[in-house]
Amino acid sequence: MQINAVRVNDRLAYLTRFGTTPDGGVTRYALSREEKAATDTVARWMEEAGLQVRRDAVGNLFGRLPGRRPGPAVLTGSHLDSVPNGGHYDGPAGVLAALEAVQSMREQGLVPELPIEVASFIGEEGSRFPHGLMGSSFLTGTFPYDEISHLKDRDGITLDEALRAYGSDPERAREAAVAPGAYKAYVELHIEQSGMLEARGLPAGIVSGIAGMRQARGIIRGRAEHAGACPMDLRRDPMPAAAEVILEVERAARESDPATRATVGFIKAMPGGTNVIPAAVELSFDIRDLDGARRDACVERVKAFFLQVCHRRSLTAEFEIQHTSTPIRCDSGIVQTMTEAAGGVGMEPFQLPSGAVHDGANVSLVCPVGMIFVRSRDGLSHCPQEYTSPEDIAVGTRLLAETLRRLAG
Amino acid sequence: MQINAVRVNDRLAYLTRFGTTPDGGVTRYALSREEKAATDTVARWMEEAGLQVRRDAVGNLFGRLPGRRPGPAVLTGSHLDSVPNGGHYDGPAGVLAALEAVQSMREQGLVPELPIEVASFIGEEGSRFPHGLMGSSFLTGTFPYDEISHLKDRDGITLDEALRAYGSDPERAREAAVAPGAYKAYVELHIEQSGMLEARGLPAGIVSGIAGMRQARGIIRGRAEHAGACPMDLRRDPMPAAAEVILEVERAARESDPATRATVGFIKAMPGGTNVIPAAVELSFDIRDLDGARRDACVERVKAFFLQVCHRRSLTAEFEIQHTSTPIRCDSGIVQTMTEAAGGVGMEPFQLPSGAVHDGANVSLVCPVGMIFVRSRDGLSHCPQEYTSPEDIAVGTRLLAETLRRLAG
Repeated sequence: MQINAVRVNDRLAYLTRFGTTPDGGVTRYALSREEKAATDTVARWMEEAGLQVRRDAVGNLFGRLPGRRPGPAVLTGSHLDSVPNGGHYDGPAGVLAALEAVQSMREQGLVPELPIEVASFIGEEGSRFPHGLMGSSFLTGTFPYDEISHLKDRDGITLDEALRAYGSDPERAREAAVAPGAYKAYVELHIEQSGMLEARGLPAGIVSGIAGMRQARGIIRGRAEHAGACPMDLRRDPMPAAAEVILEVERAARESDPATRATVGFIKAMPGGTNVIPAAVELSFDIRDLDGARRDACVERVKAFFLQVCHRRSLTAEFEIQHTSTPIRCDSGIVQTMTEAAGGVGMEPFQLPSGAVHDGANVSLVCPVGMIFVRSRDGLSHCPQEYTSPEDIAVGTRLLAETLRRLAG
Repeated sequence: MQINAVRVNDRLAYLTRFGTTPDGGVTRYALSREEKAATDTVARWMEEAGLQVRRDAVGNLFGRLPGRRPGPAVLTGSHLDSVPNGGHYDGPAGVLAALEAVQSMREQGLVPELPIEVASFIGEEGSRFPHGLMGSSFLTGTFPYDEISHLKDRDGITLDEALRAYGSDPERAREAAVAPGAYKAYVELHIEQSGMLEARGLPAGIVSGIAGMRQARGIIRGRAEHAGACPMDLRRDPMPAAAEVILEVERAARESDPATRATVGFIKAMPGGTNVIPAAVELSFDIRDLDGARRDACVERVKAFFLQVCHRRSLTAEFEIQHTSTPIRCDSGIVQTMTEAAGGVGMEPFQLPSGAVHDGANVSLVCPVGMIFVRSRDGLSHCPQEYTSPEDIAVGTRLLAETLRRLAG
């Protein structure tokens, strides 16, 4: 089936205005004004496309194309938020490809047997609050709202305050959860964020599974002292301890498996003066693997080392797991449907794993999931250089449209 | 001679209000509103004490007690700014002890042969702009204003803008420089900031020399990528490189000499997201020693390692020396005067080195310098726990007053 390749790419370009950074990237945090503005724009496009538009209690946006019978629906979509100074394709590509597929279907008079719903989930990235996959976690009823509603972002705004400022109603958050069986399937298009498709010269691929992540936060507390006056042997300096831990994180991932990835992306010394031995150093941990047990072993190794180095250096250690997602296998039926659809789109049905977590990993709790990756230039993402060509967006959108048509019947 | 121990301690307590932090410490950055308010208060006290009060073109404050003949004057004082979340004694103790000594002298009708000037220097700490010892560097004509006036603090405010906002006149900055011979001597009271006096049960001591510091800034640039998607072996991650460098800083100082101290007090990962491999990591270096050649060798070792580790990891390295101060010996004549004065104060004339740099290191370019240290509880400074007892402040102030009386004749 046909899609409007100009329209989907034009909309992608239009959304870049919401949170553009001086480097040409985008900062569109979860529940920010920028996320709200981008979501409102997509809602307007959904209405123009003739979809039934609604928002749930937490702010997830849905546009529904009714089927010949009421349900269960086929769900498709992604998110509109970003990491700080990230790229313009991670998230929006999936929302707009889904909208394009469904709008083209309606324009061509194709009425599916089952409804198709385009979703834009709030807060997929975990950059502002420790819990990412926020919108889809509310959908699956797994968001630990009561436990973390008081947690603050780096500006001191709690998750609860941010939700209310966004126009959401936390008291009704549980109403956002759907019953199992409400959806027949979930299909998400996303940029690859690595270089496997590029290395093979392929515009798009079919995802075999999604790595599970575990994120943690460590704080090492020592004693702030004058950088010149305090002799080296009397120091309780958390900075070299943090350095030892950072190197252990790298070693632990390298010595595990090629699919294991471990990252320290955030670090802060307090108070942070050039001439002050820090009182404390805070750092983040992000550890992922397609194999959950192997991932957990890597986290445990890092944690044990962290506690041991702090003990050896007479420092106080805090290590807190903040978020865990389970690795998932994509549904074999959907992968088969995509493989068949690939022929009609004229692309090779190449399968590849996802090292990054996506809303799909979450939605797999309530229905079977499949994913399509489109090629990332230089394998880059989460940075201003993130790029997928209009041609690759078009190929991916066509594969998504064909897949949705087959799944919705 | 007598001093008013209640008054000097009362004034110390009064100044704590300008920039108090939630932890009970103080943040009073160079050229901030807090520094201005504290300086204005001291100017008022100087006027109440009957001193001739003036400010130079950059904002240094002076209160002069005229002598029987016009000059050269004996200079005494310290600074009122602080590191972030620092203590209430580092700086203010020296300004207020000097004011107390001179005010008591005047109240007791003691008219010295030579004038005595109490100084409060702006921006002694290097926490906001890379160049500390700002006020005394302007005094000695060594402040590289034209080279660094465009440098920004972490809020993006340039040094030039900060000076103007403070009410200073950068165009006339050169007028703040004094001719050699304008001062006969400089004497500064300061907290020890280490534990040597406490270990010996002494309230105060006579400083033998001041360590020279070298401060530098390093930036390591790699490539921002998705923390889950990018395999370990394809990363250009600046974070583990920074960790290697931090550990080398510690090793280099430990393997040098007990008098060598090296510190990384500031680190920042950009963009700083939990799930993003950083594009760049910035870190500060502060390396000090009583021996300048040994200090420079330590800096060179760190720099060479820094460049080598960045090369090995295919990262881009920038290493920039930002500030250097020369180690100095205190003037033997002033040390002798203090040793004699100590008898009258009833204290042991114990000599000790200073690991921290002070304005005195700078003022030694234009006149002989001496320093008095007062005991720091637990050896702590640059933190909210920084404390010197009222009794120790009184002993130090008495020694300062006796020293000034002898030097001014």
